[in-house]
Amino acid sequence: MRRKGLASMAVQSAEAVTTTPAADAAPASVDLGPAKGLSCRECGEHFPLGPIFACELCFGPLEVAYELPTGDPEALRKQIEAGPDNVWRYAPLLPVPADVAGKPNLNPGWTKLVKADNLARELGITGGLFIKDDSGNPTHSFKDRVVAQAIEAARAFGFTTLSCSSTGNLAGAVGAAAARAGFRSCVFIPHDLEQGKVVMAAVYGGDLVGIEGNYDDVNRFCSELIGDSLGEGWGFVNVNLRPYYAEGSKTLAYEICEQLGWQLPDQLVIPVASGSQLTKIDKGLKELIALGLVEDKPYKIFGAQAEGCSPVSTAFRDGHDVVRPQKPDTIAKSLAIGNPADGPYVLDIARRTGGAVEDVDDEQVVDAIKLLARTEGIFAETAGGVTVGVTRKLLASGALDPALTTVVLNTGDGLKTLDAVAPTSQATAVIKPSLDAFRAAGLAE
Amino acid sequence: MRRKGLASMAVQSAEAVTTTPAADAAPASVDLGPAKGLSCRECGEHFPLGPIFACELCFGPLEVAYELPTGDPEALRKQIEAGPDNVWRYAPLLPVPADVAGKPNLNPGWTKLVKADNLARELGITGGLFIKDDSGNPTHSFKDRVVAQAIEAARAFGFTTLSCSSTGNLAGAVGAAAARAGFRSCVFIPHDLEQGKVVMAAVYGGDLVGIEGNYDDVNRFCSELIGDSLGEGWGFVNVNLRPYYAEGSKTLAYEICEQLGWQLPDQLVIPVASGSQLTKIDKGLKELIALGLVEDKPYKIFGAQAEGCSPVSTAFRDGHDVVRPQKPDTIAKSLAIGNPADGPYVLDIARRTGGAVEDVDDEQVVDAIKLLARTEGIFAETAGGVTVGVTRKLLASGALDPALTTVVLNTGDGLKTLDAVAPTSQATAVIKPSLDAFRAAGLAE
Ligand SMILES: [Zn+2]
Ligand SMILES: [Zn+2]
Repeated sequence: MRRKGLASMAVQSAEAVTTTPAADAAPASVDLGPAKGLSCRECGEHFPLGPIFACELCFGPLEVAYELPTGDPEALRKQIEAGPDNVWRYAPLLPVPADVAGKPNLNPGWTKLVKADNLARELGITGGLFIKDDSGNPTHSFKDRVVAQAIEAARAFGFTTLSCSSTGNLAGAVGAAAARAGFRSCVFIPHDLEQGKVVMAAVYGGDLVGIEGNYDDVNRFCSELIGDSLGEGWGFVNVNLRPYYAEGSKTLAYEICEQLGWQLPDQLVIPVASGSQLTKIDKGLKELIALGLVEDKPYKIFGAQAEGCSPVSTAFRDGHDVVRPQKPDTIAKSLAIGNPADGPYVLDIARRTGGAVEDVDDEQVVDAIKLLARTEGIFAETAGGVTVGVTRKLLASGALDPALTTVVLNTGDGLKTLDAVAPTSQATAVIKPSLDAFRAAGLAE
Repeated sequence: MRRKGLASMAVQSAEAVTTTPAADAAPASVDLGPAKGLSCRECGEHFPLGPIFACELCFGPLEVAYELPTGDPEALRKQIEAGPDNVWRYAPLLPVPADVAGKPNLNPGWTKLVKADNLARELGITGGLFIKDDSGNPTHSFKDRVVAQAIEAARAFGFTTLSCSSTGNLAGAVGAAAARAGFRSCVFIPHDLEQGKVVMAAVYGGDLVGIEGNYDDVNRFCSELIGDSLGEGWGFVNVNLRPYYAEGSKTLAYEICEQLGWQLPDQLVIPVASGSQLTKIDKGLKELIALGLVEDKPYKIFGAQAEGCSPVSTAFRDGHDVVRPQKPDTIAKSLAIGNPADGPYVLDIARRTGGAVEDVDDEQVVDAIKLLARTEGIFAETAGGVTVGVTRKLLASGALDPALTTVVLNTGDGLKTLDAVAPTSQATAVIKPSLDAFRAAGLAE
């Protein structure tokens, strides 16, 4: 199972990959459904399916290459619609075996696409506004989608321990998914993480290791561990399983279109942390077009960052192709990646589709969380405040067209970032238990 | 809109109710679908639909009386299956208009019924174990189901403000639902509630009033307010809208049976706070049988309480018909109702179906929360620890048959009761960022 260097796994073509998987990369019997290999996003080189993540030729990131279903789109659409109410309805388009729905998994996805008429009215959007609300996932963030894919890849590759470094949502998502799927888990966190987040990660009973240092130290340690025999047989969901893990974000694109009645939205506003989610949503939309599941038409993709961690929006504004790293300082901690791996792809997609990448400051994030809660009853994590806030800003600047159908992502739950809104979300009044006191408070209509 | 005394609303029969609604109870045009009136659970007297909750003859609780669909069960089943992925798929069986799915509502329900094979193995259940996981609702508790019904009743009766007293889940559920549905909300809480719970209730932007006193004082104040002109036009979800509100729990019965393939489970383990939920689940199961949607067969209903608030389990054990009030002292705060209104009905149902009512202490609650998290990746609120803990206890005593299909309810989310598991859910180890330190910790496989 141990990675033995990439050279022995390199093959010449996608066809070769599907017929002669390298025996030392993965079991010959590995079945990940329509996924037939990995390909380098930079140089296009192909590799067989296995727990690898970087191209041996150019060090570019690897992504899953598919043989997607051909034939009647109507039949595929019917098959999907008859599937389970979770991401596995899209199993024919994901790196998972066809019988995935019968395996133990948290089965995330098929979260609500909320028609947000109240918010649309406040923002002046007339073309239809929808919130894709991923707080409805099992551990209440979109991370359940990506971890679900990593779990199935780990199963296929024979891993027995799942691991990751995390400061928040991912720790809980991995702990919960591993527990249900029968994996051991060992998650690494900075030792001084807030108590609530430690409890959320520890309750699933896997190993949780506090590292004396900051998040960079945790990541450095994990890199060492992956290269060492100590980490042998371990699946790091966002490192050696990253190509599979990342594909989970495609399901957001699939669900949004299906929930719109198999139609592309005109505009999407997506948070940018590493940039992977935005990149994979674009990939998913393109797949739906290629498969004939939706009509081909233009769509615009907008990226949303917090001002305190805005390397991609800064590069977009400055017209750069290169993303200059930043040291994060924002309440939107789930987006605080100062050196986003997929930043250049995000810039490319935003420019190609006619979108943009924009940021809002922490005060605007809080305002937007409360605006969404007050209008639609959705309590979003700070990342949701970022997307709603950026939506408002892009409408003001004219970058977003209010007459077009717009989908805004909320990727997490406000219960996990209570501190952000606590100072401004308090009781309206405190009174003695009497009608006179209540009358005096002026709250009776 | 103001309640003018119950006398003028009393009518002689259900038929009279459906044809001559009292003009002062509700608009003549009130359309709540199959709900055709209210009936007294004690003396059977009928009343027209309106914002009333107690029988004027005997002060018994009122409940919704239906004219349920007659005719081909297969057609009804198909209609339900073609409905939305939320409680409104059962609109033909609920006190809501037929077009309810198009109105702004949080649309709760259709939460996961998780086949819990890992937990079943640990508990020795061989007949199939399922967790009905209501933490997947919009504000992450089953309260969203009942509030959704109250909202639609409030709309039908012309209320513009929604209110309740609460110490937890209900405050957030009402605040969120009111925001989305376009109602003003005014929620009353004890002034010294934990900060986190205040924030969760306040973020939706309604009025939140802290009352200087304990929860009993808050309730007493609300009773005064309902009787006063200050509260005119206010819908108190669990007081004057209670008959409609309570019906929301029926949807748990409907979903469980549909998700089992239109079959009754053999055994259900349900938490008991006021007892309303258990009572309405039994009502829902009986309706499905009467409608021919499931095959008629025996089922057993088990009630679960925390030892620190166990008035019903105590009465059950002692063979009493009367429930003696207790002063609650338990970490399962969402079940801490010392004088449960529906206690006698719970006793009756448990005895009639061959079930039982049992309780577990706080330590067993915590153990059960962690057992469920460790085996199935579901992080339950303390109320979920109560049902899982009671399930284990009932298996040990032989009251639950391990060879039968068993459904256990989790009605809330562990994120809301982190304090319960915090002392025993911590990092496994804290180490320096080095492979040597990790090796010394003994966590590498
Ligand atoms: Zn390459
Ligand atoms: Zn009566």
